[in-house]
Amino acid sequence: MHVGFIGLGHMGSGMAHNLLRAGHDVIVYNRSHGKAEALASAGARIAADVAEVCRNEVVITMLADDEAVTAVTFGDRKMIAALGKNAVHISMSTISVALSDRLAEVHRQAGQVYVAAPVFGRPEAAAAAQLFIIAAGDAHAVQRCQPLFDAMGQKTFVAAATPSAANLVKLSGNFMLGAVIESLGEAFALIRKSGVDPHRYLEILTGTLFSAPIYKTYGTLIADEKYQPAGFKMSLGLKDIRLALAVADAHSVPMPLASLVHDHFLAGVARGHGDSDWCRLAELSARNAGL
Amino acid sequence: MHVGFIGLGHMGSGMAHNLLRAGHDVIVYNRSHGKAEALASAGARIAADVAEVCRNEVVITMLADDEAVTAVTFGDRKMIAALGKNAVHISMSTISVALSDRLAEVHRQAGQVYVAAPVFGRPEAAAAAQLFIIAAGDAHAVQRCQPLFDAMGQKTFVAAATPSAANLVKLSGNFMLGAVIESLGEAFALIRKSGVDPHRYLEILTGTLFSAPIYKTYGTLIADEKYQPAGFKMSLGLKDIRLALAVADAHSVPMPLASLVHDHFLAGVARGHGDSDWCRLAELSARNAGL
Amino acid sequence: MHVGFIGLGHMGSGMAHNLLRAGHDVIVYNRSHGKAEALASAGARIAADVAEVCRNEVVITMLADDEAVTAVTFGDRKMIAALGKNAVHISMSTISVALSDRLAEVHRQAGQVYVAAPVFGRPEAAAAAQLFIIAAGDAHAVQRCQPLFDAMGQKTFVAAATPSAANLVKLSGNFMLGAVIESLGEAFALIRKSGVDPHRYLEILTGTLFSAPIYKTYGTLIADEKYQPAGFKMSLGLKDIRLALAVADAHSVPMPLASLVHDHFLAGVARGHGDSDWCRLAELSARNAGL
Amino acid sequence: MHVGFIGLGHMGSGMAHNLLRAGHDVIVYNRSHGKAEALASAGARIAADVAEVCRNEVVITMLADDEAVTAVTFGDRKMIAALGKNAVHISMSTISVALSDRLAEVHRQAGQVYVAAPVFGRPEAAAAAQLFIIAAGDAHAVQRCQPLFDAMGQKTFVAAATPSAANLVKLSGNFMLGAVIESLGEAFALIRKSGVDPHRYLEILTGTLFSAPIYKTYGTLIADEKYQPAGFKMSLGLKDIRLALAVADAHSVPMPLASLVHDHFLAGVARGHGDSDWCRLAELSARNAGL
Repeated sequence: MHVGFIGLGHMGSGMAHNLLRAGHDVIVYNRSHGKAEALASAGARIAADVAEVCRNEVVITMLADDEAVTAVTFGDRKMIAALGKNAVHISMSTISVALSDRLAEVHRQAGQVYVAAPVFGRPEAAAAAQLFIIAAGDAHAVQRCQPLFDAMGQKTFVAAATPSAANLVKLSGNFMLGAVIESLGEAFALIRKSGVDPHRYLEILTGTLFSAPIYKTYGTLIADEKYQPAGFKMSLGLKDIRLALAVADAHSVPMPLASLVHDHFLAGVARGHGDSDWCRLAELSARNAGL
Repeated sequence: MHVGFIGLGHMGSGMAHNLLRAGHDVIVYNRSHGKAEALASAGARIAADVAEVCRNEVVITMLADDEAVTAVTFGDRKMIAALGKNAVHISMSTISVALSDRLAEVHRQAGQVYVAAPVFGRPEAAAAAQLFIIAAGDAHAVQRCQPLFDAMGQKTFVAAATPSAANLVKLSGNFMLGAVIESLGEAFALIRKSGVDPHRYLEILTGTLFSAPIYKTYGTLIADEKYQPAGFKMSLGLKDIRLALAVADAHSVPMPLASLVHDHFLAGVARGHGDSDWCRLAELSARNAGL
Repeated sequence: MHVGFIGLGHMGSGMAHNLLRAGHDVIVYNRSHGKAEALASAGARIAADVAEVCRNEVVITMLADDEAVTAVTFGDRKMIAALGKNAVHISMSTISVALSDRLAEVHRQAGQVYVAAPVFGRPEAAAAAQLFIIAAGDAHAVQRCQPLFDAMGQKTFVAAATPSAANLVKLSGNFMLGAVIESLGEAFALIRKSGVDPHRYLEILTGTLFSAPIYKTYGTLIADEKYQPAGFKMSLGLKDIRLALAVADAHSVPMPLASLVHDHFLAGVARGHGDSDWCRLAELSARNAGL
Repeated sequence: MHVGFIGLGHMGSGMAHNLLRAGHDVIVYNRSHGKAEALASAGARIAADVAEVCRNEVVITMLADDEAVTAVTFGDRKMIAALGKNAVHISMSTISVALSDRLAEVHRQAGQVYVAAPVFGRPEAAAAAQLFIIAAGDAHAVQRCQPLFDAMGQKTFVAAATPSAANLVKLSGNFMLGAVIESLGEAFALIRKSGVDPHRYLEILTGTLFSAPIYKTYGTLIADEKYQPAGFKMSLGLKDIRLALAVADAHSVPMPLASLVHDHFLAGVARGHGDSDWCRLAELSARNAGL
């Protein structure tokens, strides 16, 4: 397929590479030029501006946050103006439910198609085409995008017909990961202060009930107190939990555990750890235990 | 081996059966007689009192709580008085770290051996010899018990040389399960109020990052709002989180997530759901969201 | 002075009356006409639209929320367009710090003066000219407004030269009131479940350390479980704590108690109590204790 | 009256002095001898042991915690054995509801009278006979004690006929003070990070709705960040909130704000601030905000 791709950060670069590898014709755009050139050597064409990328049947955006997506989609020379009738915008960024709803509405009015398809997975998973893709939108449109999803991920889940449902699932998933990290942080503080070996402890956890790889991944980082380099930055973890709380607030759903995780990420960022891995949340529990 | 077994509840019955199946010579004692008889037909001998059970090289206790274990171990005609020199007491109940420390000391003074070996697993796992056993104590003593552990569990983990470390690991594990249930409860409240199908949602969670069976088990119960019969009662969940907080308090380890889970279990019990499955924790999130 | 007054709700009506009583020349505007007429009989002139109110040296706004203030101030025929050079806008509504900052900037650009002057006090205090007024802005401008403040309140406090500081103080004050209500709710649940008489208990609290009238006011409502009519609606309490958390989030200040109060107000609103007095927060503690 | 007095710490010394000043005949006992001698010069007799103090119609205990009270009351040569029939034990220490219930029962069985009478007030208030006394027990017995209460306090409140009700009221009051401190700590962190002057802010709080002296006392300490010397130690604040949570747990009353305050005091103690004033709780909010 002919695909436009906007946003070549840690995640986007790997994803665009995988589209090329799968034989798709990819034209890329990134605000800073350097990253686009690395993809050019892998066969991508480089667009001069957003408008040029939009001369495709499908355009993927993979950007940092609501602000970046808003900047690229709205305004005079931006995506919504540039995209053709029936063209598809696949928004794979982790954005708010509110912005996703707004994009759905605006694309609809412009006669365009909007599919939300945020992903689970760290940059290594993006590079290895091992992402989990959560797609939502018109069933036919999602089907049209499937070859692209196949190129980038290990599996695609269709959440619902309303695009923003995929964003909600993604945000709730990141909340649940935050809860896992918080619970590990508190448990490790207790274990360490009781004199039990953290690595032995982790082995027991992951060898019994907590067999999901996330426990191993995060537990190892916490046991090693190794928070650099960041697989996923604490500032982004804070952003996502904020977005989860925003939609919870809008729907009148109290989420006290989400509030707790939010407050702890906020403390981490306030203490200057926004660029550390979000697992550094565990350090707060350790510090508060006098460790 | 010749094994005494005290406590034939939901868990203990299955465990004793598995010891018999593995060819061990088992003499059982239970406060209410009926349960012992069921085991007799499977080949167990029935003891008239605690003292009779204690005329064995190894005695296992699998009781409800600290109170029950204290009643069986201390006092004039009880275990500590009745057990011989070098005999082993394997305490498999979920008890407090403080009681486990006290048992270690008292058995030591009596020239007896104390091994703590609490388990992870629901009654079905106990029946199927699929428990995870967390053992701690003198390395040689633990080794001596291994054939028994092999008969009851799928795998044994040795936590440390201090027996109570196993109890700590068990309690911290139940805290982490409580955290999983709380996070699922909040996420499902949000998802349901947003109109996303809960079963579809659960499929996405368990098909992506949350692949540990616990998420499937608890998530299904929550999606189905099926809290009877209880695999593990909320009153017991409350008891365990209380014990986790007690040791955390003793070691000056603040655990705000554990406090939150405690407060929610306490609300569930206060509302009359102590006999429901502890997953019913999720109902509080649903109710507070107006569902 | 010649004063325009916009917003004749529970608070605004009493305040406008007091301006009239103090001899000021008041022209009022309210979206729904009925309330303006009641003031006309007390000597107020009625404006046909916002623009007419703005032909005064000072215009006071006392509106429900950010949305109402935004609607009145921005747009083609609205306050900022209609107000003359050097005219003063006194914003007495409880609004966000962000909107207050924006108003300060926009009025400055228009050559106008902006003073923030939110108040502490319930409708009865507004009617009795017993409000506490928290003013912030250019010192000279605040001084110019003092005769008006004297007519409406019992005392004026000048918070800072930055107008939004007054809004911050107001929001933080409402957070602290929310904390008082939450603490009373939990304490009363405990007291009632222990069989102590709630009124006797309240008498002890207020007769000893908790002598501020707020404890008496809220404690009595909670002891009587009398949540209608609302002196201050729970939905507004939720709104204010949301605004407090928004500025805390923007400044990276974790406020776990504010999060807790927010989540409990949200539960109250989700359960259909948005129009009850915000003291009904206490009911959640009672319910969770099985009362 | 002839009064025995046990426990001459920061609080007890002042209280015993005031009994002497009011003309009562006081015999004192303290574990460490030095403090008793200071009272001897004011006219007190010094007892050699607990038994000697108990040869009086009324004996007051004012000790640090449950452990100290248990040591003095139970055992072979202790209060309950030494006290005569119909003699009154006034327990003014801040102890658990459970211990108070136990004392009531044991004294009753011994034909003695038990009155619980914990106090609100810092050491300066004890020295100035300005304590608030919360008494509970048999009405006639409380009346008998009134002259003593009058000598030590500014006002006595009778909580109920069950002695432990007074302890419950005291503990719940300390919980509410903890909530005030937490709310001040969070508000000051927000205010400081927003650039508002903390002392100006405090002046507004205490000049408006938060007029109770506790807000002035604690707010000033927090604004000054002056946590030494301790008027009331954080370790004692932690002890009291623990006791409040214990009775709440026993009565199935979830108190999430009490849990939050507990966890923060625990963090303070774990970080080595157990001997600081309990207001230092505010420092945690400041640190978590990066201040």
